Amino acid sequence: MNEHFEKLQRYLEPVQALQGALTLFQWDNETLAPPAANEQSSRIVGALTDVYLNAFLRPEIFQLLTELKGEKDTLSEKEKAIVRELNKEYENLMVIPKEEYRAFQELTMKAAVVWAKAREEDDFASFSPYLKEIVETQKRFAGYRRKEGQSLYDVLLSDYEPDFTEKDLDDFFAIIREELVPLVKEMAEKADSIPDSFLYGHYPADKQSAFCEMLAEYIGFEKEKGVIAQSAHPFTTNLHNKDVRITNHFYENSLPSAIFSVIHEGGHGIYEMGIADDLTMTPIGGGATMAMHESQSRFYENILGRSEAFWKPLYPKLQETYPEQLAGISLETFLRAINKSQPSLIRTEADELTYCLHILIRYELEKLLIAGELCVEDLPKAWKDKYREYLGIVPDTDREGVLQDTHWAWGNFGYFPSYAIGSAIGAQLLAAMKKDMDLDACLQASNLAAVKEYLGKHIHQYGKLYGCNELLQKTTGEKFNARYYVAYLREKYHRLYA
Amino acid sequence: MNEHFEKLQRYLEPVQALQGALTLFQWDNETLAPPAANEQSSRIVGALTDVYLNAFLRPEIFQLLTELKGEKDTLSEKEKAIVRELNKEYENLMVIPKEEYRAFQELTMKAAVVWAKAREEDDFASFSPYLKEIVETQKRFAGYRRKEGQSLYDVLLSDYEPDFTEKDLDDFFAIIREELVPLVKEMAEKADSIPDSFLYGHYPADKQSAFCEMLAEYIGFEKEKGVIAQSAHPFTTNLHNKDVRITNHFYENSLPSAIFSVIHEGGHGIYEMGIADDLTMTPIGGGATMAMHESQSRFYENILGRSEAFWKPLYPKLQETYPEQLAGISLETFLRAINKSQPSLIRTEADELTYCLHILIRYELEKLLIAGELCVEDLPKAWKDKYREYLGIVPDTDREGVLQDTHWAWGNFGYFPSYAIGSAIGAQLLAAMKKDMDLDACLQASNLAAVKEYLGKHIHQYGKLYGCNELLQKTTGEKFNARYYVAYLREKYHRLYA
Repeated sequence: MNEHFEKLQRYLEPVQALQGALTLFQWDNETLAPPAANEQSSRIVGALTDVYLNAFLRPEIFQLLTELKGEKDTLSEKEKAIVRELNKEYENLMVIPKEEYRAFQELTMKAAVVWAKAREEDDFASFSPYLKEIVETQKRFAGYRRKEGQSLYDVLLSDYEPDFTEKDLDDFFAIIREELVPLVKEMAEKADSIPDSFLYGHYPADKQSAFCEMLAEYIGFEKEKGVIAQSAHPFTTNLHNKDVRITNHFYENSLPSAIFSVIHEGGHGIYEMGIADDLTMTPIGGGATMAMHESQSRFYENILGRSEAFWKPLYPKLQETYPEQLAGISLETFLRAINKSQPSLIRTEADELTYCLHILIRYELEKLLIAGELCVEDLPKAWKDKYREYLGIVPDTDREGVLQDTHWAWGNFGYFPSYAIGSAIGAQLLAAMKKDMDLDACLQASNLAAVKEYLGKHIHQYGKLYGCNELLQKTTGEKFNARYYVAYLREKYHRLYA
Repeated sequence: MNEHFEKLQRYLEPVQALQGALTLFQWDNETLAPPAANEQSSRIVGALTDVYLNAFLRPEIFQLLTELKGEKDTLSEKEKAIVRELNKEYENLMVIPKEEYRAFQELTMKAAVVWAKAREEDDFASFSPYLKEIVETQKRFAGYRRKEGQSLYDVLLSDYEPDFTEKDLDDFFAIIREELVPLVKEMAEKADSIPDSFLYGHYPADKQSAFCEMLAEYIGFEKEKGVIAQSAHPFTTNLHNKDVRITNHFYENSLPSAIFSVIHEGGHGIYEMGIADDLTMTPIGGGATMAMHESQSRFYENILGRSEAFWKPLYPKLQETYPEQLAGISLETFLRAINKSQPSLIRTEADELTYCLHILIRYELEKLLIAGELCVEDLPKAWKDKYREYLGIVPDTDREGVLQDTHWAWGNFGYFPSYAIGSAIGAQLLAAMKKDMDLDACLQASNLAAVKEYLGKHIHQYGKLYGCNELLQKTTGEKFNARYYVAYLREKYHRLYA
């Protein structure tokens, strides 16, 4: 092994461990920590962030990374990828003053709690000053990091999707607008004739919880390596490939909400569990990019989870769980209901087709915020205007509007597009997969293991070894191509609601 | 403020934060982490321990502590106590090679999981090599740390009870043996005539959980600042005074088990929640000593929790929760049953009177282990022999014998005596308390707030500002005195079973 790389690894061990500690604190903060703990625990997290930065940004690591730049030929593919990721992270962090970075960590930890309360109480004003500071900080940080030719938004985007620029996204979303907006309208006109009120009867939380736990295991989320908890907003996190954690949230007046959440987060979780043992706990031990991550979660949630073949063996079990609520509801009626497309207010509850418009709205708004063309105070109004424009409906409350997502409270700008790119990647992967296997037959035989194996072999095991386009090229024979997505949605919706 | 102390505080911030991270990992490991996570997560904990040691054992801190030794007059009482605790901890750690300390942390983290499985499967042999290594390591560490005149066991004991030596404990346990063994025998003879089988009917876990949650709040465990979870063995931990965590364990064939566990752990929790805001998150932000901690938990569990005045307002609620199981059982019968004293195998399930003999056994065994006069392989047999000698009964399995406690798996030798000292302190505090307030009247009026206020004022708020005997002197007018305990037990048991 390259001597400098070996030394580097020793310096990385505490860095990785400190990242693990920060992950655990965030998990705990979202799922379990008592309400009064936040202020003092934020100080702990702030101090840990300092320790993390001091451990990572030490001159010895910089020195080793510099030496390794000239020694690429002596490195394995995996080592090269680790050095690439480290360089990227190092360059990002070294330009941000430590005390500003730490203050930002403390700010977002507090903001996450303020957001949860603000959402609960439909009180945007209480969250607004935090969001304002988060936006200002992210703009400042992006300014420190910006390279020639990059917009501030490009910089933020590069944290999640290094293969995409603002320009690429404008092109992508233009296709979404042109091709999908007419389809959304077409389907919305049929919506009234599709019964789905039975999905919104009374579904006791304990039964939902038991069914969702079964479902997580059914799709391949391994209990031995995973945890399922509850939080205000479902999410996935992990310490390594054998400690993967997802959350869910149960609404007693909605059957689909928790079901599709657990399949979605389960998809993320299966990705993390599938990363190779020799990559986990290294800088390339996570999903390739956010979009690639979302491609897996949304592949499970929508392409599998809203398909007839998936529900054929499962629907009888669902009916058994809720014999009264689903009495007389055929599988066909159920499928048409869970795929019913109509404009709605909540992104995470949106159907597969309108979903992208929710993302489009957030993309346009966060671009404006970062460009300084929209101020936080005006955000609730702008939110409503966009919903009116693209979906033809307007939320009565901020709770159902701008306060619904946690991402901005966590400081994640440039993240939302990953959901749309990921959805499109899913369709591209589906097309490739169907050449290699009879997916419907697998699903009907409850053989979800075959799906997991395919995705594990082509995507999961590699972690961040390859980038998004590189992985797509390997697996599907071409780079990202949004046309598969449009074709998939068009075919599916026309078939279901012919 | 003293300039050196101010500097010291800045160096302590990361140290405290890293301790918090280690605490959170341990909590998570015991309550939630998936089984397959252990090995990789142990590496994270090992690396964090390294970071912690490097942050604490830096020469700058040593330098500052040295300078502060000559500047005591310029320090406040609180600052002096902080310096005292730091010196103690620094001297403990600086003599242990870092890699050995880290290996020990990883070892105990693994051992805790191996122990849980071994206990489940009644398989001492699988745990034995871990325990052996733990004993050897603790002996070696004690050897590094030993000061003139100290036995190895004295060194271990000083981590929990700096005011007590092995000699003091021999004296204390001699009193226990002389005074309580005859009382235990006297009461055991009456045991057969005291009905208690109704306590061991079927008690569904969900009802137990709900009742225990109510009970925790009833005694003063504040939900805003606390968490209740489940683990194999109930315990308490905390990040600071506004994040205090207790666990419970539900046996469906036992009513008292979870009830007295939650009151016990709740007592620990109330102590931690009561520590003053300006002490929490400092080196003196915990309970004064382990025995002082146990004095609070066992005060709540036994002196309050097994008294008539406590149950008078609560028993109707318990009957409401279990109308069938407790039909026709009067309060008097219930009280005699929950106080019934008879030799039994499980420490945590033992009655208040025989409890100290369980501790006596562990004390004698761990002294032998540390003195090298008993080897781990022979421990199961020695355990059985001691139970035969002191309690007249012998466990059939190691699960009900040597594998029942988690303490040794965590590396805690010298800890068990704290339970007995703590029980005795509780009785000493009770005598003082009764001079100041009508305790029975408070309990009957469900005024647990008054009890918490009294203990908060005299004990909790001070954290580690004062030592055990110093606190007792302040509160009760004398140092530790075991005679109160003997008198309390004699009076209580003769009254209950006249």
